[in-house]
Amino acid sequence: MYYPEPVAKLIDELMKLPGVGPKSAQRLAFHLLNALEKDALGLAQAIVSARQKIRQCSVCANLTEQDPCPLCLDPTRDQSLLCIVEQPKDVVAMEKTREIKGKYHVLHGAISPMDGIGPEQLTINLLLSRLRDSQVKEVVVATNPNVEGEATALYLSRLLKPMGIKVTRIAHGLPVGGDLEYADEVTLAKAFEGRKEM
Amino acid sequence: MYYPEPVAKLIDELMKLPGVGPKSAQRLAFHLLNALEKDALGLAQAIVSARQKIRQCSVCANLTEQDPCPLCLDPTRDQSLLCIVEQPKDVVAMEKTREIKGKYHVLHGAISPMDGIGPEQLTINLLLSRLRDSQVKEVVVATNPNVEGEATALYLSRLLKPMGIKVTRIAHGLPVGGDLEYADEVTLAKAFEGRKEM
Repeated sequence: MYYPEPVAKLIDELMKLPGVGPKSAQRLAFHLLNALEKDALGLAQAIVSARQKIRQCSVCANLTEQDPCPLCLDPTRDQSLLCIVEQPKDVVAMEKTREIKGKYHVLHGAISPMDGIGPEQLTINLLLSRLRDSQVKEVVVATNPNVEGEATALYLSRLLKPMGIKVTRIAHGLPVGGDLEYADEVTLAKAFEGRKEM
Repeated sequence: MYYPEPVAKLIDELMKLPGVGPKSAQRLAFHLLNALEKDALGLAQAIVSARQKIRQCSVCANLTEQDPCPLCLDPTRDQSLLCIVEQPKDVVAMEKTREIKGKYHVLHGAISPMDGIGPEQLTINLLLSRLRDSQVKEVVVATNPNVEGEATALYLSRLLKPMGIKVTRIAHGLPVGGDLEYADEVTLAKAFEGRKEM
Protein backbone atom coordinates (compact mmCIF):
# COMPACT_ATOMS: atom_id res chain seq x y z
CA MET A 1 0.00 0.00 0.00
CA TYR A 2 1.46 3.31 -1.08
CA TYR A 3 -1.48 5.56 -0.13
CA PRO A 4 -2.85 6.22 3.37
CA GLU A 5 -5.88 3.97 3.92
CA PRO A 6 -8.63 6.65 3.57
CA VAL A 7 -7.15 7.78 0.24
CA ALA A 8 -6.83 4.19 -1.03
CA LYS A 9 -10.43 3.54 0.02
CA LEU A 10 -11.62 6.68 -1.80
CA ILE A 11 -9.76 5.62 -4.97
CA ASP A 12 -11.31 2.14 -4.69
CA GLU A 13 -14.81 3.56 -4.37
CA LEU A 14 -14.28 5.96 -7.29
CA MET A 15 -13.08 3.07 -9.46
CA LYS A 16 -16.53 1.48 -9.11
CA LEU A 17 -17.99 4.33 -11.17
CA PRO A 18 -18.55 3.56 -14.86
CA GLY A 19 -15.70 4.67 -17.12
CA VAL A 20 -13.39 5.45 -14.21
CA GLY A 21 -10.11 3.50 -14.24
CA PRO A 22 -7.22 3.59 -11.74
CA LYS A 23 -5.64 6.77 -13.16
CA SER A 24 -8.92 8.72 -13.32
CA ALA A 25 -9.88 7.53 -9.85
CA GLN A 26 -6.55 8.77 -8.51
CA ARG A 27 -7.03 12.13 -10.24
CA LEU A 28 -10.57 12.47 -8.88
CA ALA A 29 -9.46 11.48 -5.37
CA PHE A 30 -6.75 14.15 -5.29
CA HIS A 31 -9.20 16.65 -6.70
CA LEU A 32 -11.62 15.86 -3.87
CA LEU A 33 -8.82 16.13 -1.29
CA ASN A 34 -7.66 19.49 -2.65
CA ALA A 35 -11.11 20.92 -3.42
CA LEU A 36 -12.94 23.33 -1.17
CA GLU A 37 -14.42 21.58 1.85
CA LYS A 38 -17.96 22.53 0.77
CA ASP A 39 -17.50 21.07 -2.73
CA ALA A 40 -16.11 17.73 -1.56
CA LEU A 41 -18.62 17.26 1.24
CA GLY A 42 -21.34 18.70 -1.05
CA LEU A 43 -20.85 15.76 -3.39
CA ALA A 44 -20.99 13.26 -0.52
CA GLN A 45 -24.14 14.93 0.79
CA ALA A 46 -25.74 14.99 -2.68
CA ILE A 47 -25.19 11.23 -3.08
CA VAL A 48 -26.73 10.48 0.32
CA SER A 49 -29.61 12.87 -0.26
CA ALA A 50 -30.41 11.53 -3.74
CA ARG A 51 -30.35 7.95 -2.44
CA GLN A 52 -32.65 8.84 0.45
CA LYS A 53 -35.17 11.04 -1.37
CA ILE A 54 -35.45 9.51 -4.82
CA ARG A 55 -37.75 6.55 -5.43
CA GLN A 56 -39.71 5.10 -8.34
CA CYS A 57 -43.12 6.58 -9.09
CA SER A 58 -45.73 3.91 -8.36
CA VAL A 59 -47.60 4.83 -11.55
CA CYS A 60 -44.96 5.33 -14.26
CA ALA A 61 -41.76 4.01 -12.56
CA ASN A 62 -39.90 7.25 -13.33
CA LEU A 63 -37.51 8.48 -10.63
CA THR A 64 -39.22 11.02 -8.41
CA GLU A 65 -39.07 12.80 -5.10
CA GLN A 66 -42.85 12.63 -4.56
CA ASP A 67 -45.12 9.70 -5.41
CA PRO A 68 -46.99 9.86 -7.81
CA CYS A 69 -44.56 12.01 -9.78
CA PRO A 70 -45.46 15.52 -11.06
CA LEU A 71 -45.78 14.20 -14.64
CA CYS A 72 -48.34 11.59 -13.59
CA LEU A 73 -50.28 14.15 -11.55
CA ASP A 74 -50.34 16.79 -14.31
CA PRO A 75 -54.03 17.08 -15.35
CA THR A 76 -53.20 19.00 -18.55
CA ARG A 77 -51.52 15.99 -20.11
CA ASP A 78 -53.23 13.77 -22.64
CA GLN A 79 -54.49 10.69 -20.79
CA SER A 80 -54.97 8.74 -24.01
CA LEU A 81 -51.32 8.79 -25.12
CA LEU A 82 -48.61 6.83 -23.33
CA CYS A 83 -44.93 7.01 -24.30
CA ILE A 84 -42.80 4.04 -23.20
CA VAL A 85 -39.07 4.64 -22.67
CA GLU A 86 -36.18 2.60 -21.31
CA GLN A 87 -34.65 4.98 -18.78
CA PRO A 88 -35.54 8.06 -16.69
CA LYS A 89 -33.04 10.08 -18.75
CA ASP A 90 -35.07 9.21 -21.86
CA VAL A 91 -38.08 10.96 -20.28
CA VAL A 92 -35.91 14.05 -19.95
CA ALA A 93 -34.76 13.74 -23.57
CA MET A 94 -38.37 13.41 -24.78
CA GLU A 95 -39.58 16.29 -22.59
CA LYS A 96 -36.90 18.56 -24.07
CA THR A 97 -38.62 18.24 -27.45
CA ARG A 98 -41.74 19.89 -25.92
CA GLU A 99 -43.75 17.86 -28.43
CA ILE A 100 -45.04 15.01 -26.28
CA LYS A 101 -48.37 15.84 -24.68
CA GLY A 102 -49.05 12.41 -23.20
CA LYS A 103 -47.83 10.49 -20.18
CA TYR A 104 -44.79 8.26 -19.77
CA HIS A 105 -43.84 4.81 -18.61
CA VAL A 106 -40.24 3.91 -17.72
CA LEU A 107 -39.21 0.28 -18.27
CA HIS A 108 -35.82 0.60 -16.50
CA GLY A 109 -34.05 -1.35 -19.22
CA ALA A 110 -34.76 -3.39 -22.32
CA ILE A 111 -35.18 -7.10 -22.92
CA SER A 112 -31.69 -8.57 -23.28
CA PRO A 113 -31.36 -12.34 -22.83
CA MET A 114 -27.56 -12.03 -23.07
CA ASP A 115 -27.57 -9.91 -19.89
CA GLY A 116 -30.24 -12.06 -18.23
CA ILE A 117 -32.89 -9.33 -18.54
CA GLY A 118 -36.32 -10.68 -19.45
CA PRO A 119 -39.74 -8.99 -19.36
CA GLU A 120 -40.12 -9.79 -15.65
CA GLN A 121 -37.03 -7.68 -14.80
CA LEU A 122 -38.70 -4.63 -16.38
CA THR A 123 -41.74 -2.68 -15.16
CA ILE A 124 -44.04 -4.44 -17.64
CA ASN A 125 -46.36 -5.84 -14.96
CA LEU A 126 -46.83 -2.31 -13.64
CA LEU A 127 -47.54 -1.18 -17.22
CA LEU A 128 -50.20 -3.88 -17.71
CA SER A 129 -52.03 -3.12 -14.47
CA ARG A 130 -51.86 0.56 -15.38
CA LEU A 131 -53.35 0.01 -18.84
CA ARG A 132 -56.24 -2.06 -17.47
CA ASP A 133 -59.28 0.26 -17.09
CA SER A 134 -57.28 3.23 -18.38
CA GLN A 135 -58.15 5.79 -21.04
CA VAL A 136 -54.97 5.03 -23.00
CA LYS A 137 -55.72 4.66 -26.72
CA GLU A 138 -52.20 4.79 -28.14
CA VAL A 139 -48.90 3.53 -26.79
CA VAL A 140 -45.76 4.97 -28.45
CA VAL A 141 -42.79 2.66 -27.92
CA ALA A 142 -39.72 4.92 -27.70
CA THR A 143 -37.11 2.34 -26.71
CA ASN A 144 -33.65 2.74 -28.21
CA PRO A 145 -33.21 1.84 -31.90
CA ASN A 146 -30.86 -1.07 -31.16
CA VAL A 147 -31.33 -4.85 -30.93
CA GLU A 148 -32.57 -4.83 -27.32
CA GLY A 149 -34.84 -1.85 -27.87
CA GLU A 150 -36.39 -3.40 -31.00
CA ALA A 151 -36.92 -6.74 -29.24
CA THR A 152 -38.64 -4.94 -26.38
CA ALA A 153 -40.81 -2.96 -28.82
CA LEU A 154 -41.86 -6.14 -30.61
CA TYR A 155 -42.63 -7.87 -27.31
CA LEU A 156 -44.74 -4.94 -26.12
CA SER A 157 -46.65 -4.66 -29.38
CA ARG A 158 -47.59 -8.37 -29.23
CA LEU A 159 -48.62 -7.96 -25.62
CA LEU A 160 -50.65 -4.77 -25.95
CA LYS A 161 -52.39 -5.11 -29.33
CA PRO A 162 -54.75 -7.88 -28.09
CA MET A 163 -55.89 -5.38 -25.41
CA GLY A 164 -57.24 -3.17 -28.20
CA ILE A 165 -54.57 -0.52 -27.80
CA LYS A 166 -52.89 1.05 -30.81
CA VAL A 167 -49.14 0.44 -30.54
CA THR A 168 -46.77 2.70 -32.52
CA ARG A 169 -42.98 2.91 -32.78
CA ILE A 170 -40.93 6.10 -33.13
CA ALA A 171 -39.59 6.56 -36.66
CA HIS A 172 -36.21 5.40 -37.92
CA GLY A 173 -34.44 7.55 -40.45
CA LEU A 174 -31.68 10.05 -40.99
CA PRO A 175 -30.95 12.36 -38.06
CA VAL A 176 -31.68 16.03 -38.80
CA GLY A 177 -28.48 17.74 -39.94
CA GLY A 178 -27.04 14.37 -40.94
CA ASP A 179 -25.37 13.44 -44.19
CA LEU A 180 -26.37 10.64 -46.59
CA GLU A 181 -22.71 9.85 -47.16
CA TYR A 182 -22.08 9.03 -43.51
CA ALA A 183 -25.33 7.19 -42.77
CA ASP A 184 -25.00 3.41 -42.33
CA GLU A 185 -26.87 1.22 -44.80
CA VAL A 186 -29.47 -0.03 -42.29
CA THR A 187 -30.48 3.51 -41.32
CA LEU A 188 -30.59 4.50 -44.98
CA ALA A 189 -32.76 1.49 -45.85
CA LYS A 190 -35.11 2.35 -42.96
CA ALA A 191 -35.25 5.98 -44.10
CA PHE A 192 -36.14 4.88 -47.62
CA GLU A 193 -38.74 2.42 -46.36
CA GLY A 194 -40.32 5.10 -44.15
CA ARG A 195 -40.55 7.70 -46.93
CA LYS A 196 -43.53 10.08 -46.87
CA GLU A 197 -45.33 11.94 -49.61
CA MET A 198 -44.43 15.63 -49.70
CA MET B 1 -36.09 21.65 -14.40
CA TYR B 2 -36.64 18.20 -15.81
CA TYR B 3 -35.06 16.22 -12.97
CA PRO B 4 -36.25 15.95 -9.37
CA GLU B 5 -34.23 18.37 -7.25
CA PRO B 6 -31.98 15.79 -5.47
CA VAL B 7 -31.01 14.28 -8.83
CA ALA B 8 -30.32 17.72 -10.35
CA LYS B 9 -28.22 18.61 -7.31
CA LEU B 10 -26.25 15.36 -7.62
CA ILE B 11 -25.60 16.04 -11.33
CA ASP B 12 -24.46 19.58 -10.45
CA GLU B 13 -22.03 18.33 -7.83
CA LEU B 14 -20.65 15.63 -10.15
CA MET B 15 -20.06 18.26 -12.85
CA LYS B 16 -17.61 20.01 -10.53
CA LEU B 17 -15.25 17.03 -10.88
CA PRO B 18 -12.42 17.46 -13.38
CA GLY B 19 -13.19 16.04 -16.83
CA VAL B 20 -16.86 15.45 -16.03
CA GLY B 21 -19.28 17.25 -18.36
CA PRO B 22 -23.12 17.30 -18.30
CA LYS B 23 -23.52 13.95 -20.08
CA SER B 24 -20.97 12.11 -17.91
CA ALA B 25 -22.43 13.69 -14.77
CA GLN B 26 -25.89 12.44 -15.76
CA ARG B 27 -24.52 8.96 -16.43
CA LEU B 28 -22.68 8.89 -13.10
CA ALA B 29 -25.76 10.16 -11.26
CA PHE B 30 -27.97 7.41 -12.66
CA HIS B 31 -25.28 4.88 -11.92
CA LEU B 32 -25.21 6.03 -8.29
CA LEU B 33 -29.01 5.90 -8.10
CA ASN B 34 -29.14 2.38 -9.54
CA ALA B 35 -26.04 1.02 -7.79
CA LEU B 36 -26.17 -1.09 -4.65
CA GLU B 37 -26.93 0.99 -1.58
CA LYS B 38 -23.56 0.06 -0.05
CA ASP B 39 -21.61 1.17 -3.15
CA ALA B 40 -23.33 4.56 -3.47
CA LEU B 41 -23.19 5.38 0.23
CA GLY B 42 -19.69 3.83 0.37
CA LEU B 43 -18.45 6.52 -2.01
CA ALA B 44 -20.11 9.28 0.02
CA GLN B 45 -18.60 7.86 3.20
CA ALA B 46 -15.14 7.51 1.59
CA ILE B 47 -15.18 11.19 0.58
CA VAL B 48 -16.15 12.34 4.08
CA SER B 49 -13.67 9.98 5.73
CA ALA B 50 -10.76 11.01 3.45
CA ARG B 51 -11.49 14.70 4.06
CA GLN B 52 -11.63 14.17 7.81
CA LYS B 53 -8.64 11.86 8.28
CA ILE B 54 -6.12 13.04 5.69
CA ARG B 55 -3.82 15.97 6.42
CA GLN B 56 -0.37 17.16 5.35
CA CYS B 57 2.64 15.67 7.09
CA SER B 58 4.32 18.46 9.07
CA VAL B 59 7.75 17.25 7.93
CA CYS B 60 7.44 16.41 4.21
CA ALA B 61 3.97 17.84 3.34
CA ASN B 62 2.86 14.51 1.86
CA LEU B 63 -0.76 13.51 2.50
CA THR B 64 -1.00 11.25 5.52
CA GLU B 65 -3.32 9.84 8.12
CA GLN B 66 -0.77 10.14 10.92
CA ASP B 67 1.66 13.01 11.47
CA PRO B 68 4.62 12.62 10.85
CA CYS B 69 3.90 10.25 7.99
CA PRO B 70 5.21 6.63 7.93
CA LEU B 71 7.83 7.56 5.29
CA CYS B 72 9.27 10.32 7.49
CA LEU B 73 9.30 8.01 10.53
CA ASP B 74 10.96 5.10 8.71
CA PRO B 75 14.45 4.77 10.31
CA THR B 76 15.73 2.49 7.51
CA ARG B 77 15.60 5.30 4.95
CA ASP B 78 18.66 7.26 3.93
CA GLN B 79 18.61 10.56 5.86
CA SER B 80 21.15 12.13 3.52
CA LEU B 81 19.06 11.91 0.35
CA LEU B 82 15.93 14.00 -0.22
CA CYS B 83 13.75 13.66 -3.30
CA ILE B 84 11.56 16.69 -4.10
CA VAL B 85 8.34 16.08 -6.04
CA GLU B 86 5.37 18.20 -7.03
CA GLN B 87 2.44 16.07 -5.88
CA PRO B 88 1.63 13.25 -3.44
CA LYS B 89 0.92 10.98 -6.41
CA ASP B 90 4.52 11.55 -7.56
CA VAL B 91 5.72 10.04 -4.27
CA VAL B 92 3.66 6.95 -5.12
CA ALA B 93 5.14 6.87 -8.65
CA MET B 94 8.68 7.12 -7.27
CA GLU B 95 8.04 4.52 -4.57
CA LYS B 96 6.80 2.07 -7.19
CA THR B 97 10.31 2.04 -8.70
CA ARG B 98 11.62 0.63 -5.36
CA GLU B 99 14.89 2.41 -6.18
CA ILE B 100 14.66 5.49 -3.97
CA LYS B 101 16.13 4.90 -0.54
CA GLY B 102 15.89 8.49 0.69
CA LYS B 103 13.13 10.70 2.02
CA TYR B 104 10.66 12.90 0.17
CA HIS B 105 9.39 16.43 0.13
CA VAL B 106 6.12 17.35 -1.58
CA LEU B 107 5.86 20.88 -3.01
CA HIS B 108 2.13 20.70 -3.81
CA GLY B 109 2.62 22.33 -7.19
CA ALA B 110 5.26 24.03 -9.28
CA ILE B 111 6.17 27.65 -9.81
CA SER B 112 3.83 29.03 -12.44
CA PRO B 113 3.50 32.83 -12.67
CA MET B 114 0.70 32.42 -15.25
CA ASP B 115 -1.44 30.66 -12.64
CA GLY B 116 -0.32 33.00 -9.87
CA ILE B 117 1.74 30.31 -8.15
CA GLY B 118 5.03 31.61 -6.76
CA PRO B 119 7.50 29.99 -4.32
CA GLU B 120 5.43 31.18 -1.35
CA GLN B 121 2.41 29.11 -2.49
CA LEU B 122 4.54 25.95 -2.35
CA THR B 123 5.97 24.20 0.72
CA ILE B 124 9.42 25.71 0.14
CA ASN B 125 9.56 27.44 3.55
CA LEU B 126 8.88 24.07 5.18
CA LEU B 127 11.66 22.59 3.01
CA LEU B 128 14.16 25.28 4.10
CA SER B 129 13.44 24.88 7.80
CA ARG B 130 13.69 21.13 7.33
CA LEU B 131 17.08 21.33 5.60
CA ARG B 132 18.52 23.56 8.33
CA ASP B 133 20.45 21.36 10.79
CA SER B 134 19.59 18.25 8.77
CA GLN B 135 21.83 15.43 7.56
CA VAL B 136 20.69 15.93 3.94
CA LYS B 137 23.67 15.93 1.56
CA GLU B 138 21.89 15.58 -1.77
CA VAL B 139 18.57 16.91 -2.98
CA VAL B 140 17.14 15.24 -6.13
CA VAL B 141 14.66 17.54 -7.84
CA ALA B 142 12.04 15.28 -9.43
CA THR B 143 9.55 17.91 -10.57
CA ASN B 144 7.82 17.30 -13.91
CA PRO B 145 9.90 17.78 -17.10
CA ASN B 146 7.78 20.73 -18.31
CA VAL B 147 8.20 24.52 -18.17
CA GLU B 148 6.84 24.89 -14.62
CA GLY B 149 8.79 21.90 -13.31
CA GLU B 150 12.05 23.14 -14.85
CA ALA B 151 11.52 26.65 -13.47
CA THR B 152 10.92 25.19 -10.03
CA ALA B 153 14.02 23.00 -10.30
CA LEU B 154 16.15 25.99 -11.28
CA TYR B 155 14.73 28.08 -8.43
CA LEU B 156 15.42 25.32 -5.91
CA SER B 157 18.95 24.73 -7.13
CA ARG B 158 19.80 28.44 -6.76
CA LEU B 159 18.24 28.44 -3.31
CA LEU B 160 19.82 25.26 -1.97
CA LYS B 161 23.34 25.28 -3.46
CA PRO B 162 24.51 28.19 -1.25
CA MET B 163 23.51 26.02 1.75
CA GLY B 164 26.25 23.56 0.69
CA ILE B 165 23.78 20.92 -0.47
CA LYS B 166 24.33 19.00 -3.70
CA VAL B 167 21.32 19.57 -5.96
CA THR B 168 20.64 17.10 -8.79
CA ARG B 169 17.89 16.79 -11.39
CA ILE B 170 16.34 13.53 -12.67
CA ALA B 171 17.56 12.68 -16.19
CA HIS B 172 15.84 13.65 -19.41
CA GLY B 173 15.95 11.21 -22.29
CA LEU B 174 14.04 8.61 -24.22
CA PRO B 175 11.49 6.62 -22.25
CA VAL B 176 12.30 2.90 -22.01
CA GLY B 177 10.47 1.03 -24.76
CA GLY B 178 10.19 4.25 -26.75
CA ASP B 179 11.05 4.81 -30.37
CA LEU B 180 13.50 7.36 -31.83
CA GLU B 181 11.11 8.03 -34.67
CA TYR B 182 8.35 9.23 -32.38
CA ALA B 183 10.49 11.18 -29.92
CA ASP B 184 10.17 14.96 -30.16
CA GLU B 185 13.30 16.91 -31.02
CA VAL B 186 13.77 18.47 -27.57
CA THR B 187 13.70 15.06 -25.86
CA LEU B 188 16.08 13.70 -28.48
CA ALA B 189 18.47 16.62 -28.02
CA LYS B 190 18.37 16.12 -24.24
CA ALA B 191 18.98 12.37 -24.70
CA PHE B 192 21.99 13.12 -26.90
CA GLU B 193 23.31 15.72 -24.48
CA GLY B 194 22.95 13.31 -21.56
CA ARG B 195 24.75 10.42 -23.30
CA LYS B 196 26.85 8.12 -21.15
CA GLU B 197 29.90 6.00 -21.89
CA MET B 198 29.05 2.32 -22.23
